[in-house]
Formats: sequence, structure tokens, C-alpha cells
Amino acid sequence: MGQLLQCVPNFSEGRDPAFRCELQNVFERFPVKVLDLSMDADHNRADCTFLGAPTVVEECAAALCARAVELIDMRTHTGSHPRMGAVDVVPFVPIRSLTMEDAVEIARRFGKGFAQRHAVPVFFYEEACTSEGRRNLADVRRGEYEGMPAKLEDPGWAVDAGPQAFNERSGVTAVGARMPLIAFNVNLGTDDLAAAKAIAAAVRHSSGGLRYVKAMGLEVADRGLVQVSMNLVDYRRTPIHRVLELVRSEAARYGVSVRECELVGMAPLEALTEAVGYYLQIPGFDSEKVIEHYLLDEDES
Amino acid sequence: MGQLLQCVPNFSEGRDPAFRCELQNVFERFPVKVLDLSMDADHNRADCTFLGAPTVVEECAAALCARAVELIDMRTHTGSHPRMGAVDVVPFVPIRSLTMEDAVEIARRFGKGFAQRHAVPVFFYEEACTSEGRRNLADVRRGEYEGMPAKLEDPGWAVDAGPQAFNERSGVTAVGARMPLIAFNVNLGTDDLAAAKAIAAAVRHSSGGLRYVKAMGLEVADRGLVQVSMNLVDYRRTPIHRVLELVRSEAARYGVSVRECELVGMAPLEALTEAVGYYLQIPGFDSEKVIEHYLLDEDES
Repeated sequence: MGQLLQCVPNFSEGRDPAFRCELQNVFERFPVKVLDLSMDADHNRADCTFLGAPTVVEECAAALCARAVELIDMRTHTGSHPRMGAVDVVPFVPIRSLTMEDAVEIARRFGKGFAQRHAVPVFFYEEACTSEGRRNLADVRRGEYEGMPAKLEDPGWAVDAGPQAFNERSGVTAVGARMPLIAFNVNLGTDDLAAAKAIAAAVRHSSGGLRYVKAMGLEVADRGLVQVSMNLVDYRRTPIHRVLELVRSEAARYGVSVRECELVGMAPLEALTEAVGYYLQIPGFDSEKVIEHYLLDEDES
Repeated sequence: MGQLLQCVPNFSEGRDPAFRCELQNVFERFPVKVLDLSMDADHNRADCTFLGAPTVVEECAAALCARAVELIDMRTHTGSHPRMGAVDVVPFVPIRSLTMEDAVEIARRFGKGFAQRHAVPVFFYEEACTSEGRRNLADVRRGEYEGMPAKLEDPGWAVDAGPQAFNERSGVTAVGARMPLIAFNVNLGTDDLAAAKAIAAAVRHSSGGLRYVKAMGLEVADRGLVQVSMNLVDYRRTPIHRVLELVRSEAARYGVSVRECELVGMAPLEALTEAVGYYLQIPGFDSEKVIEHYLLDEDES
């Protein structure tokens, strides 16, 4: 039925070009689409983004992580990015025809399999978390690799899967499920940073705004204007159009125009059909109205 | 690069269920996606809509038409829909990553091959036409099957491909290229038919409005409201958002609200990304911003 799952594993190796080849060799074996595979030497970390049918993505993630566990030794790892394991984080992201409940089920099943196979302690985070204290990755990873032996002795940090004992070579892994993040920026026709900050404060959750919006006001120095820079962390419950219309409404009170917007990276078709349905006033508009939808369905069957 | 071509051939057989099976058997042999295959006994006509990579669509169309020429005898054909040949019309429609020039080239090459292989006179129409008098299908088909022997003797109707002589068994075929038609209706929050007619007149090309818009005002009796019913015949040059905004603007002068809109059938992703780019004010927004785009590309490579 055209289901699409995305996985964005992060591995603690960003310097050895051979590691990239190893990951590519694994990807070759699975019918998944790799959207990104980047390494950062300073962070000493590799990020992959790939997607496909759920079962295939789960199998591919398992194969990638198995190879990473074989190749990476955390005892010698240094890097500027927070990390706690060779396989540091494995988030699963529902893109199409999948609920968050589906993604959580996949994440937990994957986490248990990974933990058992490699004797690595695993915590579940974000939507897959088993308690609110583990929802934020930063809380789960606090202490990093070096602090994990002590953390694992804390009764509050009983693992969600795998051994309670620290794995010196591979560290600890966080496995989660989350919505795709939509990075959406609104450039304002002014250089008034205070206005951008006030608008950001009005729309973001933390200061009373929309629930699934993070926002801040920034200068775009090279263009002489300011920006409301946002992360939309659940476009199903706080859709793009509602965010933009609120920004427009708040901007109007300062006599400020919306110059243009930008979508950084990509968004699922579903997030865009939601916007089309709103602006074209078409009730129930969804991807079944899009010709290409029928090709995607065939793809997955 | 993810090119998609659609073909919508119409055949003069709408009563024999075996004919549908024959078409399906042909479709089985090609990696195309069949969106519609319907027969109408009253019209005595079969309509197919299918799409895929351009070369595959062209080959599949040739195979369908060859089978139709074998099976249909126009000498015994009756039906309420205007028609002039066993293979009555074969329009090619660019859906994705194809220009109209590409579609015209394909239509003409297809038309020449078909005409030669089956000794059927062919006229090119719409964007594939060789003179303005042949742009409208109604002009090309005027006289229908019964009038074609005389039409082919008229020096003004030299064929575009194939023999100038009438083919009694198979008739005459029109081959064309056109944009996908978007059927877009706007329901107004009123039962004032005069307002709907006035708005339709303001937006449609024939009475001074937007170039690629056909529109009329209609009653939607069962809902107690009126509708501006439109066909958008070139969404690249007259995009959906511009049409809707003009309808909204004209409706405002009558104090009439837009209740809701409807998209009848489907639209290409490109037509929707155009609307997203406008309403979300994202310059240059296109399908490369849509995650599913990358799966479609893989599909076609």
C-alpha cells in the first residue's frame, strides 16, 4: 500500500573513508533509497538517511548497525559531537501510509534485536520512549560514552533492551521513532531583529505558541533582513499552513511583510498535500489526487 | 530522470466485454500504470488512461492500437459519441519532466508509424497540429466516419500521415499532444446562479479572462448552492492558484464566499508544487523538495 519508512542512523566514525564504503556496500544489498550519507571529521560521526518499505528498511538498518559494531571501537573515539555508542542513535521516521504507532513498534522490535545480537545496552527515546524522562535524546545521552558505566548502575536507567552491563567496545545505543522534521524559515521584509524574535516567541510552543513548533528570530546578515527560523516537529498535528498563517498574522501587527519562505531539505508529500488542501480549500485533499501517487503504490507492492 | 508520459487513447468499441480483455492483455505486456479503462455502451467507445516512461508508453500505445485495428470494423459501428475511426483519438500528455515539444515529437512519430503500419489516414491535432485549423479535435472530426471519404478529397484536408485514401474498415485517426486537463470546481456560499455565471465569465478566456481557463456557472441543485466549474487546460501557463485567487477576488465583489473547492480526478505533482510555492511563498519550489520524488526517479532509471 505504498508504505514508506525512513531511518537516520548515526555512527561514531567520521574520519575513515573506508567506513563510508562499508556502509555503501551494505546499502547495495537492499532495495532502499539513500538520500544522504555524510561524514564529519570534526564530529567524527557518520549520518545516513535512507528510506523504503518498512521491512526492508528494518533489515537494512540491522545490517548497517552490525557492520558498524564490527568496525568501530569506542575506546579510542574522540569527536566534538555528543555520542555514547558506536551505533549512537537509530531513529525511525514514518513518511507515508504509516502511523507513529507503526514506527514505534518497528523501533522497539529493532532495538531489542540489535541489543540481543550485539550485547549492547539500548534505550528507547522520543516517541518510542518507555518513560517521559527518556523522551529527549539529550537526557538519554547525558554523560556520553565515558559516563555510561555509572549511568547503567543507576536504578533510574534500567535499559529498555539488552544487557544492563556496559559494553566497553560498542557503548550504548538510543533507538527511537519520531516524525520527520520540517525546517521552515520565513524571511521578513525588515532588518528589525526584535520583530523577528517577537514573532518567533509568538508561534513557538515553549513560549505559548503552537505545540509542535520550535522557533527563533535570526539575522540573515548577508541579505540585510531577519528570519523566523523554525522546526516543525509534527506536521500532522501542527501543519505548515497554520504556522505560516500565524507568522503572517503576527508580522502584520509590526507592519512587517513576509518576503519569502524556505523549506530546508525535503518534506513528505503528505505535508504538502495538507497545505494544498488548506489553500485551495479542497476538503479531504490527499495524495490520491496526485497522479504520481499511483506509481509509488506500484513500487511498493 | 523520472520522465512520465500519459496516453489516453479512445477506441470505437464499448459494448463487447471481450474487447476490454484484449486491451488488458496488451497492458500486461508493458510496464505501464493503467489509471483507467472504461467502456460506455451508449457511446460504444472505450477510453484508456495509462502512463509510464515515454518510450514504453509509445510502444504500448502502438500495441493497443494494432489490436484495436484488428478487432474493430467501423462499417458496422454505431454510437452516440462523435467518432471517425476504430482508433479514434490518441492524445499524448506530458506529466513529469517532459516538455510539450517532447510530447509533440512523440505524437507525430507515433502517428506516422501507426498510419504506415495500418494504412490509416492520420491527422495531428491540438499541440501536435500542423495548422491552426486542425488544433481543435471537433474540427478534425467534423463529418465523422461517414463524412471522411468526402473530407479526404478536400485539398484542405491533406493527411498529416498515412494514405490520403479512406480506410473503410478502420476509418481515420487523430493523434495529438496536449497538457493534462485539470477539472477544478469552486462551490460558492450562495444559491445566486447569476453570480456564479458572472464569476465564470470574468475568469474564462473566451470572455476576457485567463488564457487557459474554460469556465461556466452551474447550479449544484442537491446542495442548494452554485458552482464555478472550470477546466484548466494548461496549468503551467495558467496555474491553479492564479485561477482560484481571481475567483476569490471576483466573488468578493458580490459579497459571496468560496465555500470549498474540488479537484475532479487527478493532477500532476508539478501542478501542486506550483500551488505550494505560491501559497507558502517559497521561490522556485518544485518536486525536488518532496521526499517521494526520489523514489519516482529510481523507478524510471
